[in-house]
Amino acid sequence: MNSRGRLLVSCPDRPGIVAAISTFLFERGANIVHSDQHSTDPFGGRFFLRVEFELPGLSQRVEELEREFSRIAVRYRMDFRISLADVKKRLAVFASREDHGLLELLWQQRSGDLRADIAMVISNHEATGDLVEPWNVAFHHIPVTPNTRLEAEQRQLTLVSGGVDLIVLARYMQILSPAFVESWRNRIINIHHSFLPAFVGANPYAQAADRGVKLIGATAHYVTIELDAGPIIEQDVYRVDHRFTTRDLRRVGRQIERSVLARAVTWHVEDRIIVDGNKTIVFD
Amino acid sequence: MNSRGRLLVSCPDRPGIVAAISTFLFERGANIVHSDQHSTDPFGGRFFLRVEFELPGLSQRVEELEREFSRIAVRYRMDFRISLADVKKRLAVFASREDHGLLELLWQQRSGDLRADIAMVISNHEATGDLVEPWNVAFHHIPVTPNTRLEAEQRQLTLVSGGVDLIVLARYMQILSPAFVESWRNRIINIHHSFLPAFVGANPYAQAADRGVKLIGATAHYVTIELDAGPIIEQDVYRVDHRFTTRDLRRVGRQIERSVLARAVTWHVEDRIIVDGNKTIVFD
Amino acid sequence: MNSRGRLLVSCPDRPGIVAAISTFLFERGANIVHSDQHSTDPFGGRFFLRVEFELPGLSQRVEELEREFSRIAVRYRMDFRISLADVKKRLAVFASREDHGLLELLWQQRSGDLRADIAMVISNHEATGDLVEPWNVAFHHIPVTPNTRLEAEQRQLTLVSGGVDLIVLARYMQILSPAFVESWRNRIINIHHSFLPAFVGANPYAQAADRGVKLIGATAHYVTIELDAGPIIEQDVYRVDHRFTTRDLRRVGRQIERSVLARAVTWHVEDRIIVDGNKTIVFD
Amino acid sequence: MNSRGRLLVSCPDRPGIVAAISTFLFERGANIVHSDQHSTDPFGGRFFLRVEFELPGLSQRVEELEREFSRIAVRYRMDFRISLADVKKRLAVFASREDHGLLELLWQQRSGDLRADIAMVISNHEATGDLVEPWNVAFHHIPVTPNTRLEAEQRQLTLVSGGVDLIVLARYMQILSPAFVESWRNRIINIHHSFLPAFVGANPYAQAADRGVKLIGATAHYVTIELDAGPIIEQDVYRVDHRFTTRDLRRVGRQIERSVLARAVTWHVEDRIIVDGNKTIVFD
Repeated sequence: MNSRGRLLVSCPDRPGIVAAISTFLFERGANIVHSDQHSTDPFGGRFFLRVEFELPGLSQRVEELEREFSRIAVRYRMDFRISLADVKKRLAVFASREDHGLLELLWQQRSGDLRADIAMVISNHEATGDLVEPWNVAFHHIPVTPNTRLEAEQRQLTLVSGGVDLIVLARYMQILSPAFVESWRNRIINIHHSFLPAFVGANPYAQAADRGVKLIGATAHYVTIELDAGPIIEQDVYRVDHRFTTRDLRRVGRQIERSVLARAVTWHVEDRIIVDGNKTIVFD
Repeated sequence: MNSRGRLLVSCPDRPGIVAAISTFLFERGANIVHSDQHSTDPFGGRFFLRVEFELPGLSQRVEELEREFSRIAVRYRMDFRISLADVKKRLAVFASREDHGLLELLWQQRSGDLRADIAMVISNHEATGDLVEPWNVAFHHIPVTPNTRLEAEQRQLTLVSGGVDLIVLARYMQILSPAFVESWRNRIINIHHSFLPAFVGANPYAQAADRGVKLIGATAHYVTIELDAGPIIEQDVYRVDHRFTTRDLRRVGRQIERSVLARAVTWHVEDRIIVDGNKTIVFD
Repeated sequence: MNSRGRLLVSCPDRPGIVAAISTFLFERGANIVHSDQHSTDPFGGRFFLRVEFELPGLSQRVEELEREFSRIAVRYRMDFRISLADVKKRLAVFASREDHGLLELLWQQRSGDLRADIAMVISNHEATGDLVEPWNVAFHHIPVTPNTRLEAEQRQLTLVSGGVDLIVLARYMQILSPAFVESWRNRIINIHHSFLPAFVGANPYAQAADRGVKLIGATAHYVTIELDAGPIIEQDVYRVDHRFTTRDLRRVGRQIERSVLARAVTWHVEDRIIVDGNKTIVFD
Repeated sequence: MNSRGRLLVSCPDRPGIVAAISTFLFERGANIVHSDQHSTDPFGGRFFLRVEFELPGLSQRVEELEREFSRIAVRYRMDFRISLADVKKRLAVFASREDHGLLELLWQQRSGDLRADIAMVISNHEATGDLVEPWNVAFHHIPVTPNTRLEAEQRQLTLVSGGVDLIVLARYMQILSPAFVESWRNRIINIHHSFLPAFVGANPYAQAADRGVKLIGATAHYVTIELDAGPIIEQDVYRVDHRFTTRDLRRVGRQIERSVLARAVTWHVEDRIIVDGNKTIVFD
C-alpha cells in the first residue's frame, strides 16, 4: 500500500498542539487511523504523540511532508519523525550460547507476528550458525576474547553500519564498549533475565534463588553505558515456589524472556516507543 | 477547581474529526490534559473519543459549551456528553447476604480511591444495615419475595429516581424486571462470580469446580435483559488447582470480585466507558 | 542413571495408605525424592499419590517391584503404575496449517525442557513437512477429506500403534472418531484456543471478539468423545482490550497456546497428571 | 471438633523419614488429611514436612503425642511442632497512617477467611482508633518519637507478651530495634510496597516511578535485623504503564499489598510456612 504513515512527536506541553497536528494532517488529506498521546504534566510537562495515518501516495511525499511539518515543529519546539509503516526495520541480532531469544525472533518474523527483517545474526559461538542456517539469514561468527574485544566490536560495527536499524542483544553475554553504546543510543535492546532493578549483573537466577523470591522475571531495556540500568521497555514475571530448582527457574525464565523480548522488539519496529529520559512511553 | 471537564464522543469515523474537536477546544481556551480515541475501522467504522481538558470557569459554562459543540456534533453525527470531573457521581448499591463487594466500595470511597458518593445502600437483608451503619450511608431494607417482587422494585425505583447516577449490584442475588433494566440501560453494573461467558447463572463456583477449570474468574458487566449477557467491563482470574475446595474457591473468588467490581465502578464514574453495542470501550 | 522411578497411585482414601507405601519403598532401599498426595475427602473420598524415588538398579527390577507392590494394591484397591523416569515417552504430534504448537514442542524437545521423544509428526498439510524437515523427525502427510476420513484415521492408528505413548493435537483441526478417541483414552492432548468452557467449537477468537471479553485464553485438555469437554489439564489467559483486532487476538493467542500446550505435555510425560473422572490432579 | 492436628517437621534428608512418621501416625489412629513435603536435595539436603491429620480426642493428647514423637525426632535429628488446627493464633497488628492492610485483616477475620483472633491493634496515630472501634478490637495508641522509641517498644513488648502469637506490621512505618526483632524471630510479618529486593527502604513507589518499571509489586516477609531483607513469604505484581501517576501507583499498590499481606498472614496462622535460612517453604 505504502500509504500508511506514522508520526511521532515529543515537545513541551502547551495548548493547541493536537489542534495544530490534526489540522495539518486533515488539510493534506490524511486520515488518522490510530492516535495515542501522553503528557507528563499538562502544565509545564512534556507532551508525546504517536499518530498512525493513511495518506494516498505517502511514499512519494514523505520528505515533502517532513519539510512542511517542520514549520509546526519549530513553533512548538518539537522533536518529530515520520516513518512509512510498510518499510520494515532491519535487525541485527547478537546471540551467544543461550539461543531461545534468537529463535523466538526468527520464528515470529517468519509467522508475520514480528514485522521486521532480520538482516543478520552475529554470535561469538560458531554453533549458532547451525541453528540459523535453515532460516536463510546471514550469519557472522565473531569470537570475542578479552584481547580481541575492540577488534570484534569494530567488525560488528562495520557489519551493522549502513542498513541496520536496531541491534537486539538476545542473551548476548558480552558487554559492549561505551563508545559502541553511545553511537547506537536507544537503538540497542537487551533482554535481562530478572525483574530489574532486582538482580543486576551476572547470574540473576542464582541471585533470585538465593533471595528466595516468589516471582521470576525478565526485563527488556535499551542499553546505556551503565549496566542493566537503561530505559525499561517491558517486564513480566512468573510465579515460582520452593520446589523450583535452578534448572526450573531457567526453563520458566526462558519462556518469559522470549515473550518479553519479542514484545519489546515488536514495539520498537512499529515505532511505538518514545524514550523520555530514563523511561519509556510505550503506545502499545 | 471545577475547571476540569470530560468530553465523550462517539460517531461514524471519517477524516477531520480530531481536527474539528481539538480546534474547537483550543479556540475556547481549553487545555487537553488526556485524550484517548479508538476507531473500530478507520474506513466505515465507528469512532470513539474521550478528552479530559482544563477550562477556567468551566462549571459556569457547561451548557454554553454543549450548545456550541452541538454544531460540530450535528455535522459529524456525533453522540456526545460533557461532564464536570469534580461533580461526583452518586451510587446506589444493591446488596444481599454476601457483602464483600459492598464493603470494598464503601472502603474505596472513604480512602478516596473511588471518587463517587454512595448515596444509599439497598438490601433485602436487614443485617446489611449493621454493616453499613458506621459508614454513615443511608440504608434501606427492602425485602423481596416472589409475591412482592414488583412492589419491591417500585420502592427501589422511587429511591433511586432523582439523584442516583449508577446502580451497582454488589452480589445482589435478585433478578430485576426487564422494565427496570431498560429504564436504567448502561447504568446498572453487576458483578458475576465467573469468567463470563463461562458459567452463566446460579452457583458459578460449583459449576467451575465441576468442570475442573484451572483459573477462577469474575466479570463486571452492564445489566441487560438477557441474564449475564450484557457488555463486559472488566474481568480477572486467579490460578487454582485440585486442592481448592469450594470454600477456597469462594474465598479466592471474593478477592477477585472485589477488585474487578471496584475497577468497573471507578471507570464508570470517571466517564471512561463507552458502550458500543454489546461491547465496551474502556479508556483506562 | 536408570535408578529413578515414579509410582502413581489412586484408591479409596482410608488410614494407613501412606504408611504402607512409604514402608514398602523404605524396606526395598528406595529413597523418596519427591512426594505429592491429594485426597478429595479424607472420609470416603479418593486418594491420589505421586512418588518419585531413587532405587539403585531399578531398571532391572521394575517388574519385580510391580509384582510385589500388587499385594499392597489389592489390599487398598489401588490403581497404580510404576515408570522409569529416564525412559522418555514417545509422542506423535498431529498438526495442521497453524504450526506454532508443533514448533514449540520441537523446540522444547531440542532444548531439553521437554523430556520426550517426538517420534513422528502427522499432518493433513504437505507444507508442514518443510517445517519439520530440519528437525530430523519422521513426517507423514495424511490428507483428510470427508470421504477419506476413516481411511486416514486407519493410517494414523497404524502409525501410532506400537511405540507411541501420547498423541498431541497441536491445532489439528480435524475431529477424531469416537472409536479412535476411546482407544486412546487419556492419551490424547488437545489445545483449544479459548478459556474453556467458554467458546467451545469453531472460531473461538471470533466468538471472544463478539462477546467482548477482556481476557483471551487457551486450554489444554484430554480428548473425549464430547467436543472440547474432556478433563482440563492447564489454562492461561492474557489481558486484551478494545484495541485488539482479530489478528491481534490470534497473535497473542498463539503465545498462550504454545506455553499452555507445552506445560500440559510436559506434565503428562513426567507422569504428573492423574485423571479423576472429568478432572485432573496435576502434581506440578 | 478439636481433633484436627498439624505436624511440622524439618530435618536432614535421609531414607525412611516418611515411613517412620506415617507409621507413627497410623499406629495411633490418626488419619492423614493433607500432606506436603519438600527436600532441598534428597542426598544430603534438608527435608521438610507438613501433615494435617484427624485424631479423635487430640486436644487431650497433644503433650502425650509430642512426648512420643520426640523419640522419632531424636533419631532423625528433627525440629518439629504439633499444633491444634482449631486453636486460633492471636495477632497484634501494628499500624500507622496507611490503614488498608489493617482493614483487610479485620475484614478477612470477620468473614472467616482469616482464621485468627486479632487480639489488639497498636498504632502511633490516635486516629487509627476510630477506624478500629466498630470492630470491637482492643486498641492501643503508642506515640513514637525519636526520643521515646525505646520506651514505646517497651510498652509494645509488654502488650504482646503473654498471648500474642504473631505481630503484623501493616504498613507500620517505624523500625523496630534489633533486640525486639530478635526476640520475635520469624514471628513478625511486614508488608513492603515493592517487589523486593527492588526498592528497599523508603518511598518504593517514588523509586519505582523514577526507574520506570512496568510492574508494581508488594512483598510480605519476616522481619530480620537487616532492613527489608528477611525471608520472603509472598509477592505479587500489577501491570502499570507511563500513564500511572504516583497517586495511581499508590492506589494500585494498596490492592496488591492488601492481598499479599492477607495471604502471608493466613499461611502463617495455618502453620503453612517453614523458614529455611533466609527462605520460606510455603505449603499452600
